[in-house]
Amino acid sequence: VTIAVIGCGLIGASIAGGLTRAGHTVWGLDRRDLSELVERRWLARQVKSEELPAARLVVLALPPDAICGALSRLPFAPGQVVTDTASVKVPIERAAMALPPEVAFVGGHPMAGDSRGGVEAARPDLFQGAVWVLSQRAAAGPRRQVEELVGELGAHPLTVDPERHDRLVAWTSHLPQLLATCLAAELEAQGDPLAEQLLGPGGRAFLRLARSPFPLWQEILSSNQEAVEAALAAVTARAGQPPQALAEDFAAAQRFAARLLESAVNWAPARKDST
Amino acid sequence: VTIAVIGCGLIGASIAGGLTRAGHTVWGLDRRDLSELVERRWLARQVKSEELPAARLVVLALPPDAICGALSRLPFAPGQVVTDTASVKVPIERAAMALPPEVAFVGGHPMAGDSRGGVEAARPDLFQGAVWVLSQRAAAGPRRQVEELVGELGAHPLTVDPERHDRLVAWTSHLPQLLATCLAAELEAQGDPLAEQLLGPGGRAFLRLARSPFPLWQEILSSNQEAVEAALAAVTARAGQPPQALAEDFAAAQRFAARLLESAVNWAPARKDST
Repeated sequence: VTIAVIGCGLIGASIAGGLTRAGHTVWGLDRRDLSELVERRWLARQVKSEELPAARLVVLALPPDAICGALSRLPFAPGQVVTDTASVKVPIERAAMALPPEVAFVGGHPMAGDSRGGVEAARPDLFQGAVWVLSQRAAAGPRRQVEELVGELGAHPLTVDPERHDRLVAWTSHLPQLLATCLAAELEAQGDPLAEQLLGPGGRAFLRLARSPFPLWQEILSSNQEAVEAALAAVTARAGQPPQALAEDFAAAQRFAARLLESAVNWAPARKDST
Repeated sequence: VTIAVIGCGLIGASIAGGLTRAGHTVWGLDRRDLSELVERRWLARQVKSEELPAARLVVLALPPDAICGALSRLPFAPGQVVTDTASVKVPIERAAMALPPEVAFVGGHPMAGDSRGGVEAARPDLFQGAVWVLSQRAAAGPRRQVEELVGELGAHPLTVDPERHDRLVAWTSHLPQLLATCLAAELEAQGDPLAEQLLGPGGRAFLRLARSPFPLWQEILSSNQEAVEAALAAVTARAGQPPQALAEDFAAAQRFAARLLESAVNWAPARKDST
């Protein structure tokens, strides 16, 4: 199958490399020159948007706003299946309503990445063992086609309602990112050179998130702003309690973390950022 | 050298195992039966407090409140060097002032651990590559003795003023713990079974902290409450900004994270919790 990947950064290049390894013909579309990815044989070739209609499946691996723009501008062909990788799903689903009815849209979100970002951090096995959300709103046939590709990348497809997805990732992804960035920014502002050295393994893993880039995250946080604000308020309220009042919170948190540990055991371990 | 380790949980048992491997005679003192650690040859034997005066060096690997109690109650001998491993240093230094002047105290804090806690998670190489804070208030001779042991455990001794230490770990350790616990508690309260599956690698690493036990952390958070509250307020204020206003915070956070990455490259990588 010929697959066109639009946007060949961390996620797009990793998808391209993985699907090429799985035996597909993968085209890349990007403003940047992609000859290095072609030389690496992660891409069959770089194409222009005029050629898109010849692909069977199109993957939009761009920041959310650019995906919305691409959905309204690119020359999709009847019978094509279009999927995306954005961290927010409701705004993308809304933009996808502008597609002609013969073009099938399957919203997607791979729960994998690397806070370093960029094509330099890309690798064909980035999604190995990761959950890959696919939208419940998609028609069953096209969704099965995308599920197959997701499986070939070593990921676990999981069908989720877009609203439920966006509400949950506010807690599981967007708020942790926001807190890590703000904590690291505060430490940077204080300028005590000892701070880095007084990080244990947990704080170090948390603050590694602070490498993430602003342009992408501004879009993500803006498109899910209400949910992120609610999550921040709820966590702050709990954290503001006096320490001796936290017994139930610690107990509940331990129950959650124990299940988290279990799910990591049942599945292939999620890839860790390399330091 | 004969070393007595008081409290043989995660930290104490790991110290015992590591120092035994380095050729020392290590005694264990605990309310629990330690025969398993003796069988494993991490300890030479379990002793009672009456025997403590015969040890050259005493390591208090207990929760903060218990360390303060032990400092005022145990039969230390003139010429002994006493060190501890608590995550807060100012209250411990205050308690250590009650020691007889011929007993040398060297406050310590290994920046390593495992959120699972408990002797089951202990391992002799737990401290490999980790920073191990030693108090600037200690006399040079005794501090050098502790530094030597720290080096034998594979850790990097770092002399820090206790007040500066406590102020910094409020940001680098105590606030991340508090936020991870409160976020996990909130997710547990919401009860959506999809939450665990919608965690990417960053959020997963962060929420692994939520396994930490309440009794220990109540003491840590209580003894550093003012600094933790200030850190929470500062981070919350930054995080409450609208997304488009966060450009400078992301830029500062990236500078901090880049240095963090560098320090991880220069030193042996900090041990990760195993999942």
